[in-house]
Amino acid sequence: MSLVVLNEYLSQIKELNQDSMSKARERLDSLAKPPGSLGKLEDIAVRLAGISGSMVYNPDKRCVIIMSSDNGVVDEGVAAAPQQVTYTQTLNFFTGLTGVGVIAKKFNADLIVTDVGINADISHPLLKNRKIRKSTWNIAERNAMTYDEALQAILIGIDTAIEASKNGYRLLGAGEMGIGNTTTSAAVLCALTGIKPEQATGKGAGLKEEVYRHKIEVIRTALKNNKPNSQDPVDVLSKVGGFDIAALAGVFIGGAYTRTPVVIDGFISMVAALTAFRLNPAVKDFMFASHASYEQGFAYAAQALEIEPCLNLNMRLGEGSGCPIMFIVIDAACAVIRDMGTFEQANIDEKYLNEIKGGDSFTITN
Amino acid sequence: MSLVVLNEYLSQIKELNQDSMSKARERLDSLAKPPGSLGKLEDIAVRLAGISGSMVYNPDKRCVIIMSSDNGVVDEGVAAAPQQVTYTQTLNFFTGLTGVGVIAKKFNADLIVTDVGINADISHPLLKNRKIRKSTWNIAERNAMTYDEALQAILIGIDTAIEASKNGYRLLGAGEMGIGNTTTSAAVLCALTGIKPEQATGKGAGLKEEVYRHKIEVIRTALKNNKPNSQDPVDVLSKVGGFDIAALAGVFIGGAYTRTPVVIDGFISMVAALTAFRLNPAVKDFMFASHASYEQGFAYAAQALEIEPCLNLNMRLGEGSGCPIMFIVIDAACAVIRDMGTFEQANIDEKYLNEIKGGDSFTITN
Repeated sequence: MSLVVLNEYLSQIKELNQDSMSKARERLDSLAKPPGSLGKLEDIAVRLAGISGSMVYNPDKRCVIIMSSDNGVVDEGVAAAPQQVTYTQTLNFFTGLTGVGVIAKKFNADLIVTDVGINADISHPLLKNRKIRKSTWNIAERNAMTYDEALQAILIGIDTAIEASKNGYRLLGAGEMGIGNTTTSAAVLCALTGIKPEQATGKGAGLKEEVYRHKIEVIRTALKNNKPNSQDPVDVLSKVGGFDIAALAGVFIGGAYTRTPVVIDGFISMVAALTAFRLNPAVKDFMFASHASYEQGFAYAAQALEIEPCLNLNMRLGEGSGCPIMFIVIDAACAVIRDMGTFEQANIDEKYLNEIKGGDSFTITN
Repeated sequence: MSLVVLNEYLSQIKELNQDSMSKARERLDSLAKPPGSLGKLEDIAVRLAGISGSMVYNPDKRCVIIMSSDNGVVDEGVAAAPQQVTYTQTLNFFTGLTGVGVIAKKFNADLIVTDVGINADISHPLLKNRKIRKSTWNIAERNAMTYDEALQAILIGIDTAIEASKNGYRLLGAGEMGIGNTTTSAAVLCALTGIKPEQATGKGAGLKEEVYRHKIEVIRTALKNNKPNSQDPVDVLSKVGGFDIAALAGVFIGGAYTRTPVVIDGFISMVAALTAFRLNPAVKDFMFASHASYEQGFAYAAQALEIEPCLNLNMRLGEGSGCPIMFIVIDAACAVIRDMGTFEQANIDEKYLNEIKGGDSFTITN
């Protein structure tokens, strides 16, 4: 049943508006600068035009969507922090004291936090309760969840993005909280791309060498025993993933469905983005990569998705903490296409202008 | 005479305050996150503490300093745009329509624009007139300027940074406008580092292949004939540099002298930073690299300075256009150290806390 619903959403994702993108490119080339010299800011402005159908995009109302849940695999001792940190930090998101909270507040972004499977009774007026159940199962022993639960988690993410869009958010970030989720993300990445556990696995929030080696073995065991089907991302999520990754994959799908740009944060967020991409490649048009996470598997995930981050900050906190900084880069792109002067306005002579319009390289004018 | 003055400034640059840096590191390690997980944001916060002597830094008042001047080498046909664009864009900085102007305005940064050698009579109420003379000489034929003029240009930059600091600016960016200045910057980079002209030379604002090859030859000729002394950065600036590069080198020195952080923009700005570093390596402590310019020589200059940009935007506009985006990254660093909660505030249990304090890697707590 819910597979039908998911496929319905996936099938309704529409392509970028090529006409708006052409107009945006034309406008950018008319601005008083060498063509293309604002690099990715220009690419972002063009893509936002393709997403919105309008040359001017106003992303002032934005939020980081955080999916919180627990992972049974922590029983294997693969995580540096105890499981209750998922619970504690989820409540801390509402105090403004977390990393993502501080950065989001600084850059006028809201947080939308959803419980999709925290391993505790938890409630807070601002916490959205969409708990599937308390924690996934331990992927070293059995599948993380049922196929239906994976679908349910994805649909929760889609719902969350749709609701955010209805509430006027024009820019989303995809963050997470879930002790143990670098292990599940690495397993999902291996299953989807065929890379080896030692390539996909990093030291998470800071593991000792022997724990790191154990983590690799746990992932190897999970992949060997659970046999995720690389051709079916939902199967992969259910067998070696987590509720958080699945829900974030849903956020990317929901963003594309509602034509709302979604910013990818770190490793877990990038793996979720890759999973969504494997469900429908059109989703990628609505994604913007923020920072290159220091977590080892990140680069493989970004490479598989063929997406290049704009920030290089050696961050590996997660929570969506890189998203608000990328929101600012997107702000810069929006400001450039809206406010920069054209060659005419800049009084740069017609001859130079014509030469620039003539192609992507200049001729000598002296 | 002015060499004495320069050396006086250089000798008065003081080291980072190690005590404040230790305190900043301690505070960052007490915050509710895996140690070091905010990567460069933590490095920035620590360095700002070392610069200011205080753990909390407020860079709300910030500006991009733009040095405008012309280069005689444009006579060789090495630039894509005509020389009068230096004049025109310098006036455009006051209309708010330029790339740097739009981005600076978006992120609450002012522009401070100084004429150090525009090849025209120019005046504007907001333009600082420190013109040395109209344009440098053509480095393919003779030295760009005299040794004294190079010193004069550096001192103008120092003055400008000192004045900005006196006016309350707590964060500076180093930008430029000067048609032909990728050629002079490449020549300075070759002279300082010994790399070859074809390594240092890019296509500037967009050159055709044959012009690009010609540009390399012009730089080779200038280096061969003018024989800059790699051990004397002032000699290098005078023989193959420009007033803009020299003045920007001065801005970095003046920033260090007044203990005001200075953000490096693109290729020309990075070469100026390297030049300042060669005059006194202590200057580097006050520098923050913004984006990795798409201009070919940039990576060599950054490597020589051993500094890593935080943004990867494929930009190559110059003007200081990357600085205001880096201001925002610095804002994020300042917000993190000031506003994030500690482990205690976050109610993360003492056992975990102690383990984290124990070293740079965690132990298993499950």
